[in-house]
Amino acid sequence: MAQTFKTKRRVEFRDTDMAGIVHFSVFFAYMEEAEHQLLRSLGLGVICEVDGHSVSFPRVNAECNYRAAIRFEEVIDIHVVVKRIGQKSVTYGFNFFRGDTAVADGTITAVCCEFAQRHEGKPISMLTPKAIVEALTPFVSSESA
Amino acid sequence: MAQTFKTKRRVEFRDTDMAGIVHFSVFFAYMEEAEHQLLRSLGLGVICEVDGHSVSFPRVNAECNYRAAIRFEEVIDIHVVVKRIGQKSVTYGFNFFRGDTAVADGTITAVCCEFAQRHEGKPISMLTPKAIVEALTPFVSSESA
Amino acid sequence: MAQTFKTKRRVEFRDTDMAGIVHFSVFFAYMEEAEHQLLRSLGLGVICEVDGHSVSFPRVNAECNYRAAIRFEEVIDIHVVVKRIGQKSVTYGFNFFRGDTAVADGTITAVCCEFAQRHEGKPISMLTPKAIVEALTPFVSSESA
Amino acid sequence: MAQTFKTKRRVEFRDTDMAGIVHFSVFFAYMEEAEHQLLRSLGLGVICEVDGHSVSFPRVNAECNYRAAIRFEEVIDIHVVVKRIGQKSVTYGFNFFRGDTAVADGTITAVCCEFAQRHEGKPISMLTPKAIVEALTPFVSSESA
Repeated sequence: MAQTFKTKRRVEFRDTDMAGIVHFSVFFAYMEEAEHQLLRSLGLGVICEVDGHSVSFPRVNAECNYRAAIRFEEVIDIHVVVKRIGQKSVTYGFNFFRGDTAVADGTITAVCCEFAQRHEGKPISMLTPKAIVEALTPFVSSESA
Repeated sequence: MAQTFKTKRRVEFRDTDMAGIVHFSVFFAYMEEAEHQLLRSLGLGVICEVDGHSVSFPRVNAECNYRAAIRFEEVIDIHVVVKRIGQKSVTYGFNFFRGDTAVADGTITAVCCEFAQRHEGKPISMLTPKAIVEALTPFVSSESA
Repeated sequence: MAQTFKTKRRVEFRDTDMAGIVHFSVFFAYMEEAEHQLLRSLGLGVICEVDGHSVSFPRVNAECNYRAAIRFEEVIDIHVVVKRIGQKSVTYGFNFFRGDTAVADGTITAVCCEFAQRHEGKPISMLTPKAIVEALTPFVSSESA
Repeated sequence: MAQTFKTKRRVEFRDTDMAGIVHFSVFFAYMEEAEHQLLRSLGLGVICEVDGHSVSFPRVNAECNYRAAIRFEEVIDIHVVVKRIGQKSVTYGFNFFRGDTAVADGTITAVCCEFAQRHEGKPISMLTPKAIVEALTPFVSSESA
């Protein structure tokens, strides 16, 4: 049975737009912050050093479905699972709730990349930063198992 | 043969993140601005009045695939087509280029909604704001025709 | 002796720029969110209804001094005082700390305005939304008393 | 007689907030982009290499006075002058107009800093990146001469 990482945040004024709601692009920043909170909760960094190289996770895909608007000062619950761990990538799934109402869901797929000084990242095996796959495995959702 | 709306923009410093590249969430703001430029070029507003009601287009889905990073001061070409006009929604397709390099592509699906004072929008027929379907039809891409 | 309202926040990835630090414009959003937290802690809203009119606080001045950079994942303490309550305006003072290091300080001056439907706000007496001056008075810093 | 650098921009949807206007923090991003356009127009970079070191201009102060709200799709004129060139810093002055209406004015003071790998910048003489003072001098406003 997969674990779900749960976090909350309150909508800030800067996240709203003239339609009076949270701008659709901001949900992606909320997803990313929830991902980082999950990684921190596991003792992992978003950027890590492996064998003297910097390893990080650039995004290759991001998607969001919007079901209801969220507004200034509302407290939103965000649930995170791992949809899939591929050979060189990981896909996180996110569900946004306001109370019992599902307001949005989305995914982010990130590729494990090694960065030399100021060059484009080179995709490498998810197994290189060894701790990550191990730590994320309990969060792999059953639907993708 | 479908028309493509083309625009350019230069990456601003505020759009970058500590990885030295444009933050992945910013591509959605770039897509939206390109959509608005397309609408303005057709003499249409993003928010319009129809029969005394405010009609606007909240997003129900947004997605982006990232193929290469873009950086501060780079000039990016953005091409917009209409992937699909549904009964109550429209899907725009976006392609980002840096010179000849395809750096990203994405879609935004927006629902035609009527807004009464401070209430959630009610989805209505795309045909209600009459000018819109007519103006967008030349941009419907052949792949979705 | 003036009270100080204290809050904390952790720097999110979206707040960084390609210099690897929090973008200077983001400090203003952090100040605003701290102001809103102060108001919420006092049971006050940022936007309130007074005699059937909407009353809100548009900014007329904002300033920030930057003494040290702050970075992704750092936890920042933000202290808020009221520098001055004028006839139609209020000035908040903010101090940012990372541990014992003062990293920035700033002010926001906001004018008490009455808003009719979709018009520019009209400045009104700070005394109109009665609860506000009363609630903020304990936070007026001695230097401005 | 000092030169003024003039640029224009159209307000994007992402820059608005639930008050229906451009968020006050966004004026700082607009100022910065105008500064960068001025530097680019002079053939200068925001980040440059001098004697093998990276030289850049972190901000030490930023301020803005807001006189009128600006809204989605409005075209804003931004005028830039150099208020002061100090020994280690430069202060830019910005004026925002919508047509003939002065909507805001502000300043940014930036310090000339040398950056070694991932360390805090060390303030250095404005004369080190030689081209900059020379190129900016015509923009020094008479009020500060």
